[in-house]
Amino acid sequence: MRPSGRTAQQIRPVTITRNFTKHAEGSVLIEFGDTKVLCNATVETGVPRFLKGQGQGWVTAEYSMLPRSTHTRSQREAARGKQGGRTMEIQRLIARSLRACLDLKALGENTITLDCDVLQADGGTRTASITGACVALVDAINYMRSKGLIKVNPLKEMVAAISVGIVNGEPVSDLEYIEDSKAETDMNVVMTEAGKFIEIQGTAEGEAFSYDEMQSLVEIARHSIKELIDIQKSALA
Amino acid sequence: MRPSGRTAQQIRPVTITRNFTKHAEGSVLIEFGDTKVLCNATVETGVPRFLKGQGQGWVTAEYSMLPRSTHTRSQREAARGKQGGRTMEIQRLIARSLRACLDLKALGENTITLDCDVLQADGGTRTASITGACVALVDAINYMRSKGLIKVNPLKEMVAAISVGIVNGEPVSDLEYIEDSKAETDMNVVMTEAGKFIEIQGTAEGEAFSYDEMQSLVEIARHSIKELIDIQKSALA
Amino acid sequence: MRPSGRTAQQIRPVTITRNFTKHAEGSVLIEFGDTKVLCNATVETGVPRFLKGQGQGWVTAEYSMLPRSTHTRSQREAARGKQGGRTMEIQRLIARSLRACLDLKALGENTITLDCDVLQADGGTRTASITGACVALVDAINYMRSKGLIKVNPLKEMVAAISVGIVNGEPVSDLEYIEDSKAETDMNVVMTEAGKFIEIQGTAEGEAFSYDEMQSLVEIARHSIKELIDIQKSALA
Amino acid sequence: MRPSGRTAQQIRPVTITRNFTKHAEGSVLIEFGDTKVLCNATVETGVPRFLKGQGQGWVTAEYSMLPRSTHTRSQREAARGKQGGRTMEIQRLIARSLRACLDLKALGENTITLDCDVLQADGGTRTASITGACVALVDAINYMRSKGLIKVNPLKEMVAAISVGIVNGEPVSDLEYIEDSKAETDMNVVMTEAGKFIEIQGTAEGEAFSYDEMQSLVEIARHSIKELIDIQKSALA
Amino acid sequence: MRPSGRTAQQIRPVTITRNFTKHAEGSVLIEFGDTKVLCNATVETGVPRFLKGQGQGWVTAEYSMLPRSTHTRSQREAARGKQGGRTMEIQRLIARSLRACLDLKALGENTITLDCDVLQADGGTRTASITGACVALVDAINYMRSKGLIKVNPLKEMVAAISVGIVNGEPVSDLEYIEDSKAETDMNVVMTEAGKFIEIQGTAEGEAFSYDEMQSLVEIARHSIKELIDIQKSALA
Amino acid sequence: MRPSGRTAQQIRPVTITRNFTKHAEGSVLIEFGDTKVLCNATVETGVPRFLKGQGQGWVTAEYSMLPRSTHTRSQREAARGKQGGRTMEIQRLIARSLRACLDLKALGENTITLDCDVLQADGGTRTASITGACVALVDAINYMRSKGLIKVNPLKEMVAAISVGIVNGEPVSDLEYIEDSKAETDMNVVMTEAGKFIEIQGTAEGEAFSYDEMQSLVEIARHSIKELIDIQKSALA
Repeated sequence: MRPSGRTAQQIRPVTITRNFTKHAEGSVLIEFGDTKVLCNATVETGVPRFLKGQGQGWVTAEYSMLPRSTHTRSQREAARGKQGGRTMEIQRLIARSLRACLDLKALGENTITLDCDVLQADGGTRTASITGACVALVDAINYMRSKGLIKVNPLKEMVAAISVGIVNGEPVSDLEYIEDSKAETDMNVVMTEAGKFIEIQGTAEGEAFSYDEMQSLVEIARHSIKELIDIQKSALA
Repeated sequence: MRPSGRTAQQIRPVTITRNFTKHAEGSVLIEFGDTKVLCNATVETGVPRFLKGQGQGWVTAEYSMLPRSTHTRSQREAARGKQGGRTMEIQRLIARSLRACLDLKALGENTITLDCDVLQADGGTRTASITGACVALVDAINYMRSKGLIKVNPLKEMVAAISVGIVNGEPVSDLEYIEDSKAETDMNVVMTEAGKFIEIQGTAEGEAFSYDEMQSLVEIARHSIKELIDIQKSALA
Repeated sequence: MRPSGRTAQQIRPVTITRNFTKHAEGSVLIEFGDTKVLCNATVETGVPRFLKGQGQGWVTAEYSMLPRSTHTRSQREAARGKQGGRTMEIQRLIARSLRACLDLKALGENTITLDCDVLQADGGTRTASITGACVALVDAINYMRSKGLIKVNPLKEMVAAISVGIVNGEPVSDLEYIEDSKAETDMNVVMTEAGKFIEIQGTAEGEAFSYDEMQSLVEIARHSIKELIDIQKSALA
Repeated sequence: MRPSGRTAQQIRPVTITRNFTKHAEGSVLIEFGDTKVLCNATVETGVPRFLKGQGQGWVTAEYSMLPRSTHTRSQREAARGKQGGRTMEIQRLIARSLRACLDLKALGENTITLDCDVLQADGGTRTASITGACVALVDAINYMRSKGLIKVNPLKEMVAAISVGIVNGEPVSDLEYIEDSKAETDMNVVMTEAGKFIEIQGTAEGEAFSYDEMQSLVEIARHSIKELIDIQKSALA
Repeated sequence: MRPSGRTAQQIRPVTITRNFTKHAEGSVLIEFGDTKVLCNATVETGVPRFLKGQGQGWVTAEYSMLPRSTHTRSQREAARGKQGGRTMEIQRLIARSLRACLDLKALGENTITLDCDVLQADGGTRTASITGACVALVDAINYMRSKGLIKVNPLKEMVAAISVGIVNGEPVSDLEYIEDSKAETDMNVVMTEAGKFIEIQGTAEGEAFSYDEMQSLVEIARHSIKELIDIQKSALA
Repeated sequence: MRPSGRTAQQIRPVTITRNFTKHAEGSVLIEFGDTKVLCNATVETGVPRFLKGQGQGWVTAEYSMLPRSTHTRSQREAARGKQGGRTMEIQRLIARSLRACLDLKALGENTITLDCDVLQADGGTRTASITGACVALVDAINYMRSKGLIKVNPLKEMVAAISVGIVNGEPVSDLEYIEDSKAETDMNVVMTEAGKFIEIQGTAEGEAFSYDEMQSLVEIARHSIKELIDIQKSALA
């Protein structure tokens, strides 16, 4: 029995609020239960130096947790003077995942930055960030098309992500914090709407995991991501 | 005629939402029109080194704008590796203002940190931060009393703050961004509910301002702060 | 009775030594009693990036205290790897104040940097910095005119600054350290020679201050700044 | 046909040189073809602050590439003043993988640091680091046992890691740089000698990858890791 | 013929002003012609961690040039966020040289910090710093003895330093900036009053220098340092 | 009797391995007994900004010790976020020494960077770095000539360096760590093959050293450097 009473495959209630703030070209508040992440997409002309003159665009991401989004307060990274390893790892994952949504050639020499700021954390912040940022990205793309900044729609397909894991020996989907903190294995999966993988990251927290466990984790992730993509599409409809 | 149709002394609609997030001991979303700041108060045992063993508490503050809280995206300070001068100036002001609310001896050797994170900016973020942080501080104090962490109520009185300025030659209250960006003089005032000053900061943006202009700015600030303190009290009722 | 035997409105002996060092285009040692600040003005061609091509100049400032300018040694900011919040706040104030002296259009695309380095501190270092930097700025302007770098004199009017405060319940001018450390209210005022305000910053250190106290602080500041401007003019004569 | 003439499943010649340097408690030079990583294990008394008093040890790792280990010179991270995101991601992966080898309780309050410095890079540096660091860790453990620093052998089982990927549509093992740079999918797998997973990280570089592709990558990884563990054991024999 | 009309061995007029500022335990302004360095000595209880409990004291130094001590303005190191290599090299040299003056055991567990801040630079700032810091150190030692902080005088002997070099093929003493910038060889020598060496650093700027040139540089350095020690002693008399 | 049984003037066995890694234009592993330094030379088009358009090249150097190249582990400078003073001092010395080898005009607007990474330390790492880097520099120059990047050979002459010192009252050459740690005086000498000085740095570690001691140290350094230059030439033959 899970703390929330959910079944093993059941994800938390997911809410997607578009236009949550008014300045960003795409602004989405995504909630997976008590995990709340504000995903803002910014469109800027130009690309990083290493891409100049290649006729393609770029997608980058930044991730941060508000100091008191967590049970106890974490030090603000701006005050520490550097971003931690976990932050860097996550923002690289978000950016890679969202780049996979787009035909970067069709984006032209423009950059879209996805700022994922966790307002409240209860497990699964990186996968919520990817899932919300994808919707913000679509809004930003629509903005660009409406302004005539791009001719062709660069969106290839939607992506969504879920955190799955083995808790008390059982594979479960969409771990909340209390489950995450005692999971034996933790796996983040990013998939496209066509059901293909963008990223799969499984980590043994305590004991190593078997081939069969890996298989069943992937299986429930596929199932949950399909649900998430439906929710994204409803939000965008 | 002001862009919003407000009279010179009229402040924007102010909304105070308590318990906006679930982990912080005090969590307030304050909105002054389109300016939205999340003010989280964290209670921690102990005091900074310079106060150790003196039997008193401390209040500190951190301020940050989400990168896309503004019209164009600003670089994330955590990514730049340092907080800018404006950020430091503002968080020092917030902390000084809130320390003035409390009898630090009655707080015991505890520290309250006020994190003011601007979700959306439209002028007056520092004064909204002070006004919202004061409510979060009261909630944190109430939490401490309910847990028996302090015996005596350390709250001396409420404080609130307003930004006033001279726009097109006329003194007006609660400037929104479009006014702020062309104000000739800008003044931030922090006052107590008893109508005394905690802080007054007037700055000539273009031309120097006269004694009479200074007087009329102070006058409308007093008036607006009285209103704000009523709103704070209703929110806490 | 003040520690120095001065009357409430009496400022300390002020000495202005021009050409204190030989390389800078303006170099002023200003002394307010035992507070000694070296103010060097540097003229450089060009402006910061955000002003390029706008046909106007810029004035910026940096402030620092020598590690042992104070009673006990402070850590050197270069060794800590960053400037503190107080330093940033002060150098932003100095720069804003001095920009108010000049018609930046008349300055052309040139930048003047004011380096204010405190050799010895005894209260009022930021206001001494502004007062001394204004004289160094005039010398730098004169240098530019003598070299034909600018045609029109960009100087609008002189500015000077004073620290006033309430000590033992009485408003006094030009606080020295021993007074400053126990002041109930502290106010820094920057004014032009025409008697208008550039900046006014009043802070309650302990108790909040009343409207009447604010008024009397402003009054003695006006009086002292008039004196300072006479001293500046004599030094420049 | 692979550039090196290898079959799809064939790994490069792997050489493990123990005691490569003389000061470290474990010092291994591992070579996967032209990829050469020096893995030094350091034993130190005590644990990081968050573990103090819990009666368990810790394993941590640092990773760095010599500036000219690559085709073109990369800037030295010490000179840039910070470690990049890729470095942080890799050193976190190495540490997690090696912690999985040990019973941290049996290690006592001691810390083992694994420094993996890439002398020459030709693809697969992170997986070579893990495979080499495991041997250095065993030597460090043996040192501790010979000095009586620990009573019980904390080693649970060996781990090794391999990089696999899809190149020209075919799953291949142990990618060298020229293959890695054009791989469609890249997967790093860390496994125990019992054939269980410690970590699996698959990333679509261009197109998303299918379930079947994922399966075949895992399959060849298992095969290669078994070979690597045999090589580790021979080296330790 | 030297630019100043000096003979090859002739040093510039040297002035030593003690008690230049009032807070430091030793405060010396030293001038070698137009080179002016403020050397402040601070006495603090305790020693750095690596010396704790060894019953000996420590001497450390920091060096900085005011941004406009030079012909053109240099960026402030505190603003850059780090001290440059030249600064570090110089402050290490100053500290080593001054430690050689003292019996560190006799100093007890106290630390003396020598802050050498260059107010105006015209060549030879590091050797002027050492020569001035030695006088400030003696004043600090005298302060400690007068306060009873130490029983025995830890001063072994005075040290002084000079910059010598080969300019236009001729060895000369105490190079001013215009000579230094075209010197073929530059040598800094630190000696004790007994005529022994603490440090000798000779650098070929253009062509390598011969054994005979090295000898003649050392010879004139010995001569000049003897003069400097007489000047130090007169200042202290 | 020296710990190694060597005579006073005898240097350790020196081994020079060229092409130690495959990417760098010059790659040398130099060993002085147990001191092992990898010296990689990188050729890049262009020069630092301060040299642009002057038709000359540049040589720069970076130095680092692997964390566990020493008896106990040192913190990695990339993790600390800055290079220490010793590192900066050494890399400046290496660069100055190697610039002395070349006619920078003949190098054209190209930059050669010498990365000296200490794999194992046993005294004399900076002088081993210079001696090894000179060989790597020659290989890089040969590479440039073979590729037609330069017409004329910019190499003026070889340089080599040795560490000498006074240990137990006797001047000895090529100190290993155990001698270095108890040396009374330590001197690093860099010379050209023509027997002239590039750099001489003598430091009293405990007692000041006499003129005669200085002379005898220089004498044995000259002798050892002659040997080293023969070894360099054999390696290059």
